[in-house]
Amino acid sequence: MTMCSAISRTKPVQRALALTLLLRPNTEGSSNAIAKSRRFCPGVSPSIYPLRATSRSYCSKMALTEGLLFRQLFEAESSTYTYLLGDTETKEAILIDPVLETIERDLKLIHELGLNLKVAVNTHCHADHITSTGLMKKRLVGLKSAISKFSGASADILLSEGDKIYFGKHHLTARETPGHTDGCMVLVTGDQNMAFTGDTLLIRGCGRTDFQQGCAKKLYESVHQKIFTLPDQCLVYPAHDYRGQTVSTVGEERMFNPRLTKSLEEFENIMSNLNLPKPKKIDIAVPANLVCGVHDV
Amino acid sequence: MTMCSAISRTKPVQRALALTLLLRPNTEGSSNAIAKSRRFCPGVSPSIYPLRATSRSYCSKMALTEGLLFRQLFEAESSTYTYLLGDTETKEAILIDPVLETIERDLKLIHELGLNLKVAVNTHCHADHITSTGLMKKRLVGLKSAISKFSGASADILLSEGDKIYFGKHHLTARETPGHTDGCMVLVTGDQNMAFTGDTLLIRGCGRTDFQQGCAKKLYESVHQKIFTLPDQCLVYPAHDYRGQTVSTVGEERMFNPRLTKSLEEFENIMSNLNLPKPKKIDIAVPANLVCGVHDV
Repeated sequence: MTMCSAISRTKPVQRALALTLLLRPNTEGSSNAIAKSRRFCPGVSPSIYPLRATSRSYCSKMALTEGLLFRQLFEAESSTYTYLLGDTETKEAILIDPVLETIERDLKLIHELGLNLKVAVNTHCHADHITSTGLMKKRLVGLKSAISKFSGASADILLSEGDKIYFGKHHLTARETPGHTDGCMVLVTGDQNMAFTGDTLLIRGCGRTDFQQGCAKKLYESVHQKIFTLPDQCLVYPAHDYRGQTVSTVGEERMFNPRLTKSLEEFENIMSNLNLPKPKKIDIAVPANLVCGVHDV
Repeated sequence: MTMCSAISRTKPVQRALALTLLLRPNTEGSSNAIAKSRRFCPGVSPSIYPLRATSRSYCSKMALTEGLLFRQLFEAESSTYTYLLGDTETKEAILIDPVLETIERDLKLIHELGLNLKVAVNTHCHADHITSTGLMKKRLVGLKSAISKFSGASADILLSEGDKIYFGKHHLTARETPGHTDGCMVLVTGDQNMAFTGDTLLIRGCGRTDFQQGCAKKLYESVHQKIFTLPDQCLVYPAHDYRGQTVSTVGEERMFNPRLTKSLEEFENIMSNLNLPKPKKIDIAVPANLVCGVHDV
């Protein structure tokens, strides 16, 4: 029984609703999982899943990091995830990939939780939204901005491979992962329970590689060398998702990512045939993000 | 410095972007936090936060439930959260508030993770979207649907106060929380680390009480008696969020919820003056959800 036939047996009004899948415009990260998912019929023909695991070790437990306050926040226009991490004892905190449109929400939450925001870090110079790091620095005394030294952007802290960002007893370690852009980084918690993968690795997808120094080969190597070498159960928190997914694991992506499970040649072929539209905001977002989102910082 | 003046010092194009806050239509859950958040200026005038905590005990740690696989999934059209919980050893799983539009995504994930879905449960008879429980029962052998016995809806399992839904070594306990509808329930993990609050309690908001047996007094009492009595650090996972928030805690809502921190009289007054539009889908969603989303189940 296919999805279509299953739906065709329901009442017309339900059929119409079932077919109005809200497929968001997907201009930066992109994932061919969207198209593929329509052809899958789970629970009916398991044999059509070529990558079905024999081992279940990739199933994630919840992250077990003691004393870590964690919040995933979403900005709907650009489908961007912002992450707030704090030390529950010292209240020192960091913010990953904050978006200008949601600065009030984020500042209010930081204030309510009594956090002392030390660093606002971008995983790369985004093309689809303007960062709030610059404006946030004007609102929070002592806050520092951070980004890769290869991003070409200005910031208080220019990060290199292996650099650590501390907040209380916790820290994130930067791993350089060029490919989507030259200055992409993945940030990994000290216990390797969580990886903030930016646009390098998305859930069942990855960032596009057709602008901003994009290079499919570099992205492929970055994912395989810097992310797929993390423990299977390490939670993958991307910078975007366009299908309502919030988290994955390294083991899952190693098993099910429809692009990164391919050979390098197949991957390069996929990436060169995505034919994605130019991001709507790229001409204003990139120049703004080169200076923390505000020109006078 | 207010948000407006801060933005006014940026370049015009950025100001325009900063002001295009995407405020989603908010027809079922609703939250006056949206309007309120525009007036707050965090990091500038802390004294305007009347509820700022002196104790920080409400700060959440991450949930520490061993052996629990957990996924939060989002359906963008109705801003609904679906929750997948599984036992990492036995692979038995349950699904909370699944949405018809995202059935393929959810089934694919369940399949990839190797889970055996035992129960699909609705926290109440939704008015803003059609549930996928009925269609899912046709796709997954042995799956049972569940809902409150006071919902008026048909299902395999009709839940009452204190009933438990088991999956592997884990379980959820149902707490009856009438107010948004007569058949609303909150589902709490055995260790009281997580509460799935449906539309009874939203993050800094709550469900509306102006249709479907809605009663502000009942909702107020349900929240205070059945949710605010849970531990401060218990994570609150609502059925909806319209501002990109994914989780809160009982302690936070007890401290910062702009409605439920008020007296009953003030709360009733707030709820009777929301003037929300009728949910777009109520006339098709409610009849459909009375029969698990499909008329022939």
